[in-house]
Amino acid sequence: MELLFLGTGAGIPAKLRNVTSIALKLLEERKAVWLFDCGEATQHQILHTSLKPRRIEKIFITHLHGDHIFGLPGLLGSRSFQSGDSELTVFGPKGLRQFITVSLQISDTHLQYPLKIVEIEDGIIFEDDQFLVEAAKLDHAVESFGYRIIEKDKPGTLNAKKLRDDGIPPGPIYAKLKNGESVELDNQKIIHGKDYLGPTIKGRIITILGDTRTCANALKLAANADVLVHESTFSADNEEMAYEYFHSTTTQAAKTALQANAKMLCLTHISSRYGLEDSKHLVEEAKSIFKNTYIAHDFFEIPIPTSK
Amino acid sequence: MELLFLGTGAGIPAKLRNVTSIALKLLEERKAVWLFDCGEATQHQILHTSLKPRRIEKIFITHLHGDHIFGLPGLLGSRSFQSGDSELTVFGPKGLRQFITVSLQISDTHLQYPLKIVEIEDGIIFEDDQFLVEAAKLDHAVESFGYRIIEKDKPGTLNAKKLRDDGIPPGPIYAKLKNGESVELDNQKIIHGKDYLGPTIKGRIITILGDTRTCANALKLAANADVLVHESTFSADNEEMAYEYFHSTTTQAAKTALQANAKMLCLTHISSRYGLEDSKHLVEEAKSIFKNTYIAHDFFEIPIPTSK
Ligand SMILES: [Zn+2]
Ligand SMILES: [Zn+2]
Repeated sequence: MELLFLGTGAGIPAKLRNVTSIALKLLEERKAVWLFDCGEATQHQILHTSLKPRRIEKIFITHLHGDHIFGLPGLLGSRSFQSGDSELTVFGPKGLRQFITVSLQISDTHLQYPLKIVEIEDGIIFEDDQFLVEAAKLDHAVESFGYRIIEKDKPGTLNAKKLRDDGIPPGPIYAKLKNGESVELDNQKIIHGKDYLGPTIKGRIITILGDTRTCANALKLAANADVLVHESTFSADNEEMAYEYFHSTTTQAAKTALQANAKMLCLTHISSRYGLEDSKHLVEEAKSIFKNTYIAHDFFEIPIPTSK
Repeated sequence: MELLFLGTGAGIPAKLRNVTSIALKLLEERKAVWLFDCGEATQHQILHTSLKPRRIEKIFITHLHGDHIFGLPGLLGSRSFQSGDSELTVFGPKGLRQFITVSLQISDTHLQYPLKIVEIEDGIIFEDDQFLVEAAKLDHAVESFGYRIIEKDKPGTLNAKKLRDDGIPPGPIYAKLKNGESVELDNQKIIHGKDYLGPTIKGRIITILGDTRTCANALKLAANADVLVHESTFSADNEEMAYEYFHSTTTQAAKTALQANAKMLCLTHISSRYGLEDSKHLVEEAKSIFKNTYIAHDFFEIPIPTSK
């Protein structure tokens, strides 16, 4: 599981940073990629990575500002052109359906895969046996969501050596034990999965917020997250401007990470007023409050380790 | 007057060629740039040129396929963000208005300049004292237009030396003579502008076609053009495929240029199946029929000389 930042700028594309898109790579977990936002030229950025558009299984849109959605029609079309045939679901605020539908219709784009569009409200928007995704509204000029992706806990590793030492040969019962079930052996002895399983593997929590001011829901979504991706449009001294434009500063993002007890913070959505030489200063501002902070740049990739 | 190719690929963006957009630079003529098509990431391509989005005065869309329009909402928004405040007119097929309107509305984009959207039919779509633009439908899977941009002839240069030699001092009458008018001098002598003007400066004709098969209207639009920009999605041996997909080959473009008596041919809209190493071969195919042929690549710029 890795986060790959495809675009880390704010508002309009610049040479240094493209507009927003973030890929959550779940290749080991489910041979899939989940995308968060899709600013213009996201598919162009993908050309410079190893991501395959057909692997994109879900797209989560935080809000409908152009720098977060204008790459969507092109990516949807190209995924089809490049032999993507599995279902794709796009989640996002009300209005998303009209934008996608009109763009595809007017351009006479016919997708070779089933496209599901889900206009969301606060709450659980997706769940299967591996993941649960919660959405909650933030504080921005337009409706803007944050997403909390919860990986479910997995049973620990089955200790095959201990089983063999106890004279239990490999067979179908290993699968039952792996599930934590109890099993009766041929000699009428009952053995319990829990006695042969390592500790439960704790699922990870990834929180990715749309554009926002500091707000209660940001804190809620980020609680105990393994990684919090927070916009940081402005530096610490621009708090008033951040408030006026419904954005956050480096230190506001760091305070949310600290209060939420997150384990790691990634800053992104950096205003084009800041050059590459400012990145160190911006990240230091946040680090003075929350130590484990990174500032993303286009193509920045970071693994999300399983916590012990 | 120069043509600057911003994107020269077909269908989907590739590392080598972005999707279609062509800038007609009219900086000397009217301090303006006219854009033809606006595929996704056209504004990103512009970042790598000296073009200023606020200089874009008119955008002509040939057809509504995604690779020709998905960069439009972003460019319109960024032009506003980058202090463009002069009126912008976008011409194109029916459906263009809905695409632009919905994209700007859904994304809450408020332009700081007047935007005019003109859904066109065959005929003269624009005329002022400098230029006249004609549109005509081509032969493509969806309604696709070609544009013929006619620069109007300009009066020749006023021969100031000859005027002085004839004892006529500079003054307001110079402007009248420059316009070709006749003027009565203080000594009652009548002099004629035409006797002091160099030869009329012939206006240029630029023909830019949307995606198309070979067709009669392509020929009509290209008649005697100083430059013909023609799509050339396929190489000469793929004529059947070109027909099936409503496109043209290198040699079909060359034949149109030849029959239309054009002076120069620029091939663009090249399929991503062709690499950089194929360009020479593709242009040679066309040159075997029409000698003065160029094949465009992204950021290829070519002046359009005034004909003698
Ligand atoms: Zn934004
Ligand atoms: Zn095309």
